[in-house]
Amino acid sequence: MEASHPNVLAGRYASERMRALWSPERRVVLERRLWLAVLEAQRKLGLDVDQAVVDAYEAVVEVVDLESIATREAVTRHDVKARIDEFCTLAGHESIHLGMTSRDVTENTEQLLIRDSLKAIRDDLVAVIARLADLAEAHASTVMVARTHNVAAQATTLGKRFADAAAETMLGYSRVAELLDRYPLRGIKGPVGTRLDQLDLLGSAGAVDELERLVADHLGFGRVLDASGQTYPRSLDLDVVAALVQAVSGPASLATTVRLMAGLGLASEGFDDGQVASSAMPHKANARSSERIGALTAVLGGHLAMAASLAGRQWNEGDVSCSAVRRVMLPDSFCAADGLLHTALAVLEELRIDSDAMAAEFQRFVPVLATTRLLSALVQAGMGRETAHALLAEPTRNAVQQAGRDDPVDLDGLLDRLAADDLVPLVRAELTRLLAEPERFTGTASEQTARVVEAARRIIDLHPEAAAQPAELRL
Amino acid sequence: MEASHPNVLAGRYASERMRALWSPERRVVLERRLWLAVLEAQRKLGLDVDQAVVDAYEAVVEVVDLESIATREAVTRHDVKARIDEFCTLAGHESIHLGMTSRDVTENTEQLLIRDSLKAIRDDLVAVIARLADLAEAHASTVMVARTHNVAAQATTLGKRFADAAAETMLGYSRVAELLDRYPLRGIKGPVGTRLDQLDLLGSAGAVDELERLVADHLGFGRVLDASGQTYPRSLDLDVVAALVQAVSGPASLATTVRLMAGLGLASEGFDDGQVASSAMPHKANARSSERIGALTAVLGGHLAMAASLAGRQWNEGDVSCSAVRRVMLPDSFCAADGLLHTALAVLEELRIDSDAMAAEFQRFVPVLATTRLLSALVQAGMGRETAHALLAEPTRNAVQQAGRDDPVDLDGLLDRLAADDLVPLVRAELTRLLAEPERFTGTASEQTARVVEAARRIIDLHPEAAAQPAELRL
Amino acid sequence: MEASHPNVLAGRYASERMRALWSPERRVVLERRLWLAVLEAQRKLGLDVDQAVVDAYEAVVEVVDLESIATREAVTRHDVKARIDEFCTLAGHESIHLGMTSRDVTENTEQLLIRDSLKAIRDDLVAVIARLADLAEAHASTVMVARTHNVAAQATTLGKRFADAAAETMLGYSRVAELLDRYPLRGIKGPVGTRLDQLDLLGSAGAVDELERLVADHLGFGRVLDASGQTYPRSLDLDVVAALVQAVSGPASLATTVRLMAGLGLASEGFDDGQVASSAMPHKANARSSERIGALTAVLGGHLAMAASLAGRQWNEGDVSCSAVRRVMLPDSFCAADGLLHTALAVLEELRIDSDAMAAEFQRFVPVLATTRLLSALVQAGMGRETAHALLAEPTRNAVQQAGRDDPVDLDGLLDRLAADDLVPLVRAELTRLLAEPERFTGTASEQTARVVEAARRIIDLHPEAAAQPAELRL
Amino acid sequence: MEASHPNVLAGRYASERMRALWSPERRVVLERRLWLAVLEAQRKLGLDVDQAVVDAYEAVVEVVDLESIATREAVTRHDVKARIDEFCTLAGHESIHLGMTSRDVTENTEQLLIRDSLKAIRDDLVAVIARLADLAEAHASTVMVARTHNVAAQATTLGKRFADAAAETMLGYSRVAELLDRYPLRGIKGPVGTRLDQLDLLGSAGAVDELERLVADHLGFGRVLDASGQTYPRSLDLDVVAALVQAVSGPASLATTVRLMAGLGLASEGFDDGQVASSAMPHKANARSSERIGALTAVLGGHLAMAASLAGRQWNEGDVSCSAVRRVMLPDSFCAADGLLHTALAVLEELRIDSDAMAAEFQRFVPVLATTRLLSALVQAGMGRETAHALLAEPTRNAVQQAGRDDPVDLDGLLDRLAADDLVPLVRAELTRLLAEPERFTGTASEQTARVVEAARRIIDLHPEAAAQPAELRL
Repeated sequence: MEASHPNVLAGRYASERMRALWSPERRVVLERRLWLAVLEAQRKLGLDVDQAVVDAYEAVVEVVDLESIATREAVTRHDVKARIDEFCTLAGHESIHLGMTSRDVTENTEQLLIRDSLKAIRDDLVAVIARLADLAEAHASTVMVARTHNVAAQATTLGKRFADAAAETMLGYSRVAELLDRYPLRGIKGPVGTRLDQLDLLGSAGAVDELERLVADHLGFGRVLDASGQTYPRSLDLDVVAALVQAVSGPASLATTVRLMAGLGLASEGFDDGQVASSAMPHKANARSSERIGALTAVLGGHLAMAASLAGRQWNEGDVSCSAVRRVMLPDSFCAADGLLHTALAVLEELRIDSDAMAAEFQRFVPVLATTRLLSALVQAGMGRETAHALLAEPTRNAVQQAGRDDPVDLDGLLDRLAADDLVPLVRAELTRLLAEPERFTGTASEQTARVVEAARRIIDLHPEAAAQPAELRL
Repeated sequence: MEASHPNVLAGRYASERMRALWSPERRVVLERRLWLAVLEAQRKLGLDVDQAVVDAYEAVVEVVDLESIATREAVTRHDVKARIDEFCTLAGHESIHLGMTSRDVTENTEQLLIRDSLKAIRDDLVAVIARLADLAEAHASTVMVARTHNVAAQATTLGKRFADAAAETMLGYSRVAELLDRYPLRGIKGPVGTRLDQLDLLGSAGAVDELERLVADHLGFGRVLDASGQTYPRSLDLDVVAALVQAVSGPASLATTVRLMAGLGLASEGFDDGQVASSAMPHKANARSSERIGALTAVLGGHLAMAASLAGRQWNEGDVSCSAVRRVMLPDSFCAADGLLHTALAVLEELRIDSDAMAAEFQRFVPVLATTRLLSALVQAGMGRETAHALLAEPTRNAVQQAGRDDPVDLDGLLDRLAADDLVPLVRAELTRLLAEPERFTGTASEQTARVVEAARRIIDLHPEAAAQPAELRL
Repeated sequence: MEASHPNVLAGRYASERMRALWSPERRVVLERRLWLAVLEAQRKLGLDVDQAVVDAYEAVVEVVDLESIATREAVTRHDVKARIDEFCTLAGHESIHLGMTSRDVTENTEQLLIRDSLKAIRDDLVAVIARLADLAEAHASTVMVARTHNVAAQATTLGKRFADAAAETMLGYSRVAELLDRYPLRGIKGPVGTRLDQLDLLGSAGAVDELERLVADHLGFGRVLDASGQTYPRSLDLDVVAALVQAVSGPASLATTVRLMAGLGLASEGFDDGQVASSAMPHKANARSSERIGALTAVLGGHLAMAASLAGRQWNEGDVSCSAVRRVMLPDSFCAADGLLHTALAVLEELRIDSDAMAAEFQRFVPVLATTRLLSALVQAGMGRETAHALLAEPTRNAVQQAGRDDPVDLDGLLDRLAADDLVPLVRAELTRLLAEPERFTGTASEQTARVVEAARRIIDLHPEAAAQPAELRL
Repeated sequence: MEASHPNVLAGRYASERMRALWSPERRVVLERRLWLAVLEAQRKLGLDVDQAVVDAYEAVVEVVDLESIATREAVTRHDVKARIDEFCTLAGHESIHLGMTSRDVTENTEQLLIRDSLKAIRDDLVAVIARLADLAEAHASTVMVARTHNVAAQATTLGKRFADAAAETMLGYSRVAELLDRYPLRGIKGPVGTRLDQLDLLGSAGAVDELERLVADHLGFGRVLDASGQTYPRSLDLDVVAALVQAVSGPASLATTVRLMAGLGLASEGFDDGQVASSAMPHKANARSSERIGALTAVLGGHLAMAASLAGRQWNEGDVSCSAVRRVMLPDSFCAADGLLHTALAVLEELRIDSDAMAAEFQRFVPVLATTRLLSALVQAGMGRETAHALLAEPTRNAVQQAGRDDPVDLDGLLDRLAADDLVPLVRAELTRLLAEPERFTGTASEQTARVVEAARRIIDLHPEAAAQPAELRL
């Protein structure tokens, strides 16, 4: 019955790796392993528990029956108590969760999931960066019209456009990487953060510290919070979700630009055999994956709002007024971000560039793209910058309009008029020369692109497997 | 496999009614009924389709195999085309979806779901209003300390506190009710909103109008949009989600106040046999349902952010950059709001008031609660208001502090000091009298409560079955 | 000094009307008038206050010295007390604010401002609707390419595109209009909502009711809340801000589409003498006003988040944890919405359509735009819909690609190939005819446009002055 | 006139330092200094500009007339062009802004402001951490009731509660500090990011690199983006605003807890002579500063929504659809965060703890607070954990209820009943001992507090002046 209300983000968009991370069955197993790690540590620190008891629990760790747990929860109305009872019944003992409160098991397990999910996102980012670097290199010499305010501005290269996206994505990578570096574990803090019950069980603050260290080792964390209440600060969840939103922004802006390029006929997403773009219109080949990226960005914005509404609003030593939020937000934000990045991978892998259309557009706008070259030349020839700016405004605006109408722009006429103007300190030949070097129009695009690719390679070298992972786009 | 990533909001919180509304199987059936309604209308308007064809489709409407549809979608990468193919294969014909685009089927079906879900939310609100009205009446004479800034201010009644919540909830009810009144159907508009394909099939604009009217009748809508692109305006989705957030605000603020009352020992949520509040602390009886209400409010805030990020950002005649958002936001926001309101019903049904604790608190704060009575009396006796305010400030602030420490406040001393003050135009007896009428302390609380209850009864009378529905709280 | 940190939204974007409404000086005057309305009502209901006292206050109502008030507030750390003291000092009496709490004066005044601001927004919407209706009519026959997924889909008319925007804007108008109809006043409720102090002063619940009625009359409100705490429910503020976001969505989506049209050379915003689009590039003529509309939409989304974070989170009978939010959100959201709508008015007034470019684009895409006509014809001739869809897919997708490259599409070849296909139940002449009627390509666009214009006229007739107001765009 | 619509956040809440940073006059000066830094660099790299020209500009850098600039902008409808013209007119030359686009000047200046504002926030955080560390130390031995779900849970110390807040605030400090470390400058990238115009002026990519390095030096930045479009990625703004929200969360949660403590009479905010808490109720002493902290948190949540709606939605090489958002969001979010932190400083400086009330509460709840000690003892004595949990549930829940009613809990009776239970493996004396060591009830609170204080001292030592700064709370 539950099956008929699937989680859309996990079900339609997330990769297998992310789906596996957040599988409910796996979570039960992770919690059980944590309980056993605590129990082993307690034994090591002197608590009297038979090996047979530990063995009995170990034997049933992977026996997960979600239905049975749900039945128990309907009675206890407490999810962790239900999972304790299930595990104890399976093992035939009552020796786990000693000195622990629910959050000791749930928060640390969630932090493990968060940490591993952040690694998956980091790997997704590496893969996106790798694709972008390849595309930036491949198209480093493809001159095209750059647009600001969505209208022709100056020239750029298609490689540079990919390099811009890579540069932003690398900022996202840095953000995620350093969050991973400093992300601290809550640890075993007990019901109000004072570790009272472990102290009662183990006898000394030193032993309690050691217990916490052993648990952190088990979970693979190098840092543990010195102090917290029952829950770790929810601003840490905000840190995570905000990092996800930032991580996807480079690919998301590029996806928006791909949609714009599709509108101009410059690019399209690939198309599989059998794929259908529109149930009504047979001719359509839509940038639907790029649109999906936009949609998942909006979904993440909703998760960010949820995270922000928890941070800074915690009462005393804690409560569960964050519980339903985090049940939704944590898996869903990771599934959305991961799904978005895999969609971006698919777009980048399948993107078809129409270089003929790109070249045709460039030719149409050449005179327009050169206006700042004219401006620089006039300034260097001694004209005041603002005077030159005013002089060029009208004739070049007219040229834009003609280009928009597919009229051939009367370039000679434009240059003739300028050369004839007494104010203009340049002769016709100099003007002609400025427009005759389209390879100069792209400024330092190639140098910048090379630098970005170099930086990308350094990241790729750190994570070669991540860089090579293929796009997973199921639907 | 999908089953292992359940939708948390549908799975844990929503009522059976809401869950049934958004069941994926049911949605497939609704779409098929819509296709058949269009086909019937087209036949009626002259399109040549055999009755046998219609019968063949009718026969398989309820044969829903989500797996098979998913397999088709993996090829077409287009969800509606997959559902068309499935239905056609089952029926052995290709006669549905004539002249239609995907959005003709999805948007109208979604609007049906939205409309029916809004009705469910309206009914939930009626039930909450009914419980609040009952509680307001039952506690109309229970005097208690009213708090502003979380500290003792004046007196009120517990009934009035419930009446305040009812008054806000009735505002939410009005909002939802009138949205239901005006909520318009997109209708059969075709790929870009011009209804070209129906015109080609049916021959005249009049016939196309009639088709749209018949479809609206089938879906039970009185209003149809005159014009749209491929999609209806996403600001309508914002209208809906914003109404949900508004609808839950009265119960949500009350839940926050219940958490505060629990902290003062004045109230607690009920407790079932077998229920466990804390896996660590056996003594706990937490206001966990009220906390859940707060959590679901935050979840809805995230959905509102998603809705807001679609509105005002639509391109040309439409695209699917809203698709993933709406797949998440529409069912999830309704499940969250419905789950929240049912949790509120459960809290109201099970709430335990500790009237002894309430009376004890009132006694402790009596002198404090009377300060504005003293102020009014001084003003009426001719003292300037601001002068009187300044005169009362220090002695009454001291009284507050004593009350906080469980010290008995020296009421006589306070009144003696005031009576002895030459500036005070009242004699000791008059001062004494002011504090001796605690039933006057609650102002017009009883009249206001009665008025709110009366207004609530009018709403309940419109929807008696909704008012009587029980809380559904599974976990 | 304060002057050097201006409110950006009021200062750069809002119209004079909205700026005047939220002027701090005016607010002081409104509060004073409210105090006097309460005082007059109290006298009428028996409170003993000399006419001379009232006259003394009346005489200084408009003497507003914000500096002096600020100096007082620095001592009291309470803004309303500072304004009471200022007014009393000016008048030489201490007779206002009798039986009132701060919120009695601030909330009712704010609600007056909100109500009047909503009227201004409604009037802005009427003006936008009027411009859109004019444009829809003027361009009712201008055939153009409609785009879904930003690529050519079917044909539409430019008038229909404006009509779609008008239809959404009329939904926003309805939303605002009905909110105005039901928006209730908090009234004079006292510190905890029980009206105790007015009861002490006036002696009976009936007199207190009458006081509240007189105040509502003074403020022009027909509805008063029966019950509230110290503050009115903050979900009412959410209602307001959500209505603003909805109100601007029609114009905002159109602005996005204008930016897309600018990118295709189909339209541009007007350009004044002396205006400069880019400090670098003299040739630019950017859709910067449309971009501003997008920006103000995002700003409003922030205000919506603020409103949502107040609703459902109120404690007990009230506090000021909403104060700083509302100081920012209320004026700013109205200024943003009003500035956005005036920017939209300016865009609509100045918009330049390049009909040559529009016609050229249409010609390029004719074969593409006809694919659904071919599909309908094949279906009517007996072919299965899905079979016909598959048949048309590849040849028409190729045609799209050619159109994108400015290649002339080989229409004859396409039709020849189809006619030669044994599966196709149509002869060449029938196919030719389908593509020879471009006026049929726009479906029922003209009927729908006419219907929208008619609906718009009904609204305009209700508010002729609002409809005629000019755009105010200062920067 | 503009003065009458002040910026609320700058005007009421921000500190002098933050206000000075964002003063509009100062921003004009910063832009001019940047123009001159570029000009000097261009001269150094070979551009022919007279020293006299530079001197002429230098002479008027601080001559700022905002009115005059506004008048120019009303004509150009372009704010940067207006500021260029003003500066050029003052200097009598047209030699600034050579090869630059508007964003070259605005973005780099804004990034300087952002960087300096982040430093101010970091310093605010250091001050808050210092106050918290002092309070944590001062109250390290003050035993109190810890609350989860707002009800009594176990014991803690007041010092530990401050330490928890300090620990979260230090996470915010780390976040801000590392953002400062890696925050990159956009640099001089030109209209589309290719640096074409500087290349035309300076002749080589090397010279253009050198120009960018000199400008970064001037602004004090160590890192410059390799590639961008016209604008830097807006996800960087999200990074900043999200860091602010995170930075304030520790103090904000503590403020919420202070409001709760005020409700229990355990603490109150200080109160100045002349201060008024309520215009109606003379006795009130409200936690209004803590409430303000909550309000400013909500305001920041709105700014976060604005930031999120820019990230991932950038078109091509850039536009101004972010402009109005950033004009509001950047100064306002910094003013809100800074105002919040200074309000927190004031609360911490003025906080009055009522230790008598705290001790009385503790005594009332002693038996309750010991339930987990009993549980641990039973487990250690060999009882199953879940069995022991069930055994303790009812008697201890009854004790809670009694404590809430101020009834003296019958501790002896409780222990007698337990000791008499055959299942309980402990004798009466052992049970008595467990409840007789209240200093043991706080677990490792003192060790944890000491560790947090130590970590705080390390941060304070890095920024001693910041730590010592006083609270600035004007209103």
